[in-house]
Amino acid sequence: MAQVTTKTGQPLDRDIIDSLLKRTGFYMPAFEIYGGEKGLFDYGPPLTALQSNFVDLWRKHFFLREKMLEVDTTIITPEPVFITSGHVAKFADFMSKDPKTGEIFRTDHLIKQVLGARLKADSAARGAIIEVEKPEEPQKKKKIKDVKIEKLDDAVAKEYNETLAKLDNYDGEGFNGLIKKFEIKGPTSGVELDPPKPFNLMFQTYIGPSAATPNGYLRPETAQGQFLNFQKLLEFNKQRMPFASASIGKSFRNEISPRQGLLRVREFLMAEIEHYVDPESGKKHEKFADVKDTKLTLLNRHTQLAGSEKTEVMTVGEAVSKKVIDNETLGYFIVRIQDFLMKLGIDSTKLRFRQHMANEMAHYAADCWDAELFGSYGWIECVGCADRSAYDLTVHMKKTGAPLVVRETLPEPRKFQEYQAELNKKKLGPKFRKDAKAVETAVEELSQEMREKLSLELKNTGKITIDTPNIGSGKTELDKDLLTIEKREVTQHIREYTPNVIEPSFGVGRILYHLIEHSFWTRQNVDSKDAEPSARNVLSFPPLIAPIKVLIVPLSGHADFKPFIRSITAMLDEMDVSNSVDDSSASIGKRYSRNDELGTPFGVTIDFQTVKDKTITLRERDTTKQ
Amino acid sequence: MAQVTTKTGQPLDRDIIDSLLKRTGFYMPAFEIYGGEKGLFDYGPPLTALQSNFVDLWRKHFFLREKMLEVDTTIITPEPVFITSGHVAKFADFMSKDPKTGEIFRTDHLIKQVLGARLKADSAARGAIIEVEKPEEPQKKKKIKDVKIEKLDDAVAKEYNETLAKLDNYDGEGFNGLIKKFEIKGPTSGVELDPPKPFNLMFQTYIGPSAATPNGYLRPETAQGQFLNFQKLLEFNKQRMPFASASIGKSFRNEISPRQGLLRVREFLMAEIEHYVDPESGKKHEKFADVKDTKLTLLNRHTQLAGSEKTEVMTVGEAVSKKVIDNETLGYFIVRIQDFLMKLGIDSTKLRFRQHMANEMAHYAADCWDAELFGSYGWIECVGCADRSAYDLTVHMKKTGAPLVVRETLPEPRKFQEYQAELNKKKLGPKFRKDAKAVETAVEELSQEMREKLSLELKNTGKITIDTPNIGSGKTELDKDLLTIEKREVTQHIREYTPNVIEPSFGVGRILYHLIEHSFWTRQNVDSKDAEPSARNVLSFPPLIAPIKVLIVPLSGHADFKPFIRSITAMLDEMDVSNSVDDSSASIGKRYSRNDELGTPFGVTIDFQTVKDKTITLRERDTTKQ
Repeated sequence: MAQVTTKTGQPLDRDIIDSLLKRTGFYMPAFEIYGGEKGLFDYGPPLTALQSNFVDLWRKHFFLREKMLEVDTTIITPEPVFITSGHVAKFADFMSKDPKTGEIFRTDHLIKQVLGARLKADSAARGAIIEVEKPEEPQKKKKIKDVKIEKLDDAVAKEYNETLAKLDNYDGEGFNGLIKKFEIKGPTSGVELDPPKPFNLMFQTYIGPSAATPNGYLRPETAQGQFLNFQKLLEFNKQRMPFASASIGKSFRNEISPRQGLLRVREFLMAEIEHYVDPESGKKHEKFADVKDTKLTLLNRHTQLAGSEKTEVMTVGEAVSKKVIDNETLGYFIVRIQDFLMKLGIDSTKLRFRQHMANEMAHYAADCWDAELFGSYGWIECVGCADRSAYDLTVHMKKTGAPLVVRETLPEPRKFQEYQAELNKKKLGPKFRKDAKAVETAVEELSQEMREKLSLELKNTGKITIDTPNIGSGKTELDKDLLTIEKREVTQHIREYTPNVIEPSFGVGRILYHLIEHSFWTRQNVDSKDAEPSARNVLSFPPLIAPIKVLIVPLSGHADFKPFIRSITAMLDEMDVSNSVDDSSASIGKRYSRNDELGTPFGVTIDFQTVKDKTITLRERDTTKQ
Repeated sequence: MAQVTTKTGQPLDRDIIDSLLKRTGFYMPAFEIYGGEKGLFDYGPPLTALQSNFVDLWRKHFFLREKMLEVDTTIITPEPVFITSGHVAKFADFMSKDPKTGEIFRTDHLIKQVLGARLKADSAARGAIIEVEKPEEPQKKKKIKDVKIEKLDDAVAKEYNETLAKLDNYDGEGFNGLIKKFEIKGPTSGVELDPPKPFNLMFQTYIGPSAATPNGYLRPETAQGQFLNFQKLLEFNKQRMPFASASIGKSFRNEISPRQGLLRVREFLMAEIEHYVDPESGKKHEKFADVKDTKLTLLNRHTQLAGSEKTEVMTVGEAVSKKVIDNETLGYFIVRIQDFLMKLGIDSTKLRFRQHMANEMAHYAADCWDAELFGSYGWIECVGCADRSAYDLTVHMKKTGAPLVVRETLPEPRKFQEYQAELNKKKLGPKFRKDAKAVETAVEELSQEMREKLSLELKNTGKITIDTPNIGSGKTELDKDLLTIEKREVTQHIREYTPNVIEPSFGVGRILYHLIEHSFWTRQNVDSKDAEPSARNVLSFPPLIAPIKVLIVPLSGHADFKPFIRSITAMLDEMDVSNSVDDSSASIGKRYSRNDELGTPFGVTIDFQTVKDKTITLRERDTTKQ
């Protein structure tokens, strides 16, 4: 892996950044005076301001510029919504409990940790130089009991590596097999673990006074709230396609074992776009021509499958024409994401777009590219750009009957042949009674291919058997008195379709954390005339994004300076430029040093020269030029 | 009660506003396609934009201008925090269950509804003209069974009125008494109700994979997250007082029976300020002189106790000097709240500040003034401005031991006499063992008055008895071998105190709803040359706040107009001015009419004149001047 560096290319020490962020109040572990709560962090003034500026820029860059329909939907969500979306069944991680200590581990992380440690011990035994990995929380780091400097069989080492590479493919049964096979025990107790169990990552709650069991969840994404309002939004957009909705809001994941500081937390801000396109349009984008020459750093699926992480730089136009990126709309948004991250101050050399491999995509995704940012935790997914196909609108429509579709009057009526299936409703009811509706649904859902096949069978044998998963044996026989299937010519005046969804989804906290790492550097050899310390930390945020724009520094507490402080503050306030005064007794150099750590780009010194001729000294953070 | 009017003084019909808001997508009942969920609403594009503009203005008006420390703390909160704050015990409403139908009612609302209905029936019987009240949800409105047009005894009617006036004073026992006494039955079943039970209004949840019972809550206010970070924030502020923290975020209340549309919801955005002051400073405010001549419309506590709602207009300077408003800091914030609401577009004649009566204040408040806005639901609390005293910091400090205090080096050492209590620790431990700590705490908490009294008793009898609520019988005897209490002279170099908190707290949704009502009017008699319909709805939001600032309207879909649409859009985009194009086939008048309902202040018409000489027609919403 590439070396982690500061903005100026020096080796980056995460401990220094962490201690800077905590010392200067960027963030605090939440409920610290109550002993803290894992995976929950409070943002202090600098990070809150940084976040506000992020949101402001995001809103202008996407929502205003692209004329998106911004909505604010509720966090609390009744259970049926997430049953339909698949989250109740599938939005889970596996956990393993140590029966002796009661500790709970996320199963995949435990396997990764144990096998990784054994492989490292093997390398050591083979005489390799071991890079010492920084533990994330040194004081709490669990000791892995079974690691000795021990050489593994070549075959075993190979199997470990292969297992680690495809760990995302396993389910509970699979994990249990690995635990048994590789004899993975409780890391502190050494005893056998309970079999892995799925743990749903949604926070549960009780809505209303009469709920005896949990009947709702805190949303794990803002997307569902947007999908459920699709009809209203399409109407708001005067029935025109394509269009996008967007939402910025908190989402929640009840992580089994949160770690990696601000990167894996239980409560986080998301900014999500749901862009609806006609699947038959080839997913063209009208502004694609404007961006087609933009260069992207891509890591595609095939390269990864070949075991490589080698990225390619190409224009988005080339990527789409070569089908590396599937379509123009996906390509357009990837460019817009990159533009946004650049405006924000992300280091372009620490950004890549990685395509998901088939097996790692979420249950709803058809294709997905992640904007990954590089920092002290490696390459981290910070923006997902997924093609969710028609999955969500389809399942919600099927469940509720709401017409989550687009109806388009065709410019020319369209004529085509299709197999139509007609049930004799008079006979259907008496025969199937309560199951009649389910039979009807099953028939409606038969594909054209299946109808063609069945029409032949019906003609030949006088009866057919269809799948009816919701009725008794799962199969139902229908005869020709009940059902006819015929090929007919159809003239269509209105086309009805379920749009596909392209979803750029931003994890705000993860991006902000990387922005901090990418903005961080240590100033060396400062001219001693500045009376500033010789080495110190700087966060070089772009002025647009910096929490505070201007620091006002009077030479001392002298009364003559006060009117100047007041008038400069008033002037900046009038322009809505955030500013702060540091009139503490520390030296000017010390005060600037403190504010370099907060990323304040400009400083104004008020001294006796100011009193004399009303001039001020302006200082720029990155160059310290005055 | 005063008549509810539109912006132009015409009678206001809430149904027209409600239907406008739903039709134009301002808000939607959440999860409508799943049958909806009471008390949860989604904001559509116009209301989301209005809310963003609110937040932006609020941030500039308070947070930037007042140099507040903005924080973003978590929604999910572990239980111990709310046990300490008193919310687990006291943040509850009483509910009554109908054992026959299973319906659950908020007890105070039910009593109010039944007694109110009986009084109205009484008035009818006495021949008064009854104002027909609009039911909130006509289709769902419960019939009150026991109401006939029936005259009440004068004494009974008086008792009803008195009961209603002080309904906030009752607890569960009290409510039960009223229900029995006034024979209030299940409104649809007519059967006797179960006794009222308290229902805690916080949403419960389970944090982490090992929680078997709920171990956390969704916050009902953002305040606690701010208090818990007090130490860090004071440090960030370089130990200087006074200062304020501020937070904008979602809060949650699991209402028993949500109603009143957007006014009483289960999930809502709050903007809260916690301003920390030295209680010994007289709560002066350094900028009070700047605002002292601002006029306020006040409804004080005494007027209300005398049964009147008569407001008084006076300057804040006068109000503070007459002690109508307790102190300068409270007065300063009341003015700043008023300024903000005026900037937002609230009608000044529909704003008053009402002081809480002693019995209606929250469990933590020492004084409280509400900014109430008038609209179709009557006078509604939209901003609270409470003096929470030192309550919260004190209880959290007591519980956790964290020093949530200010330490100030005194300019001059302060000498004074005080009674000091000293325990003989060598004897204390062996005698009280596990209770020793509790005895120590009880002694530390003895007031100076108590110490004076006990020192005398100790001298006279050789022993004293103190309250120790956490030990056995609740009383503990201590003799003079264990304890000495003596008056000594103390020289203090550092003063330690717990700040008091002044808390302006904004319910964003409630304010936005009233902003809409105050901005609404119906245009009559429009000049027919405009080709606009003759009567239509307008929302006159100030341009700063309006969801979309400029509507671009081409005369038709003619290709010649396209380049002009593009260049005007690009120019406005460049300036971050939100704009939208309506190139639908409706008439220009119809299109403007549609956008008047969305409150878009400016319109640009592109016609053949534009193509000819590059001029455009600009239209102003409120005057329709072109």
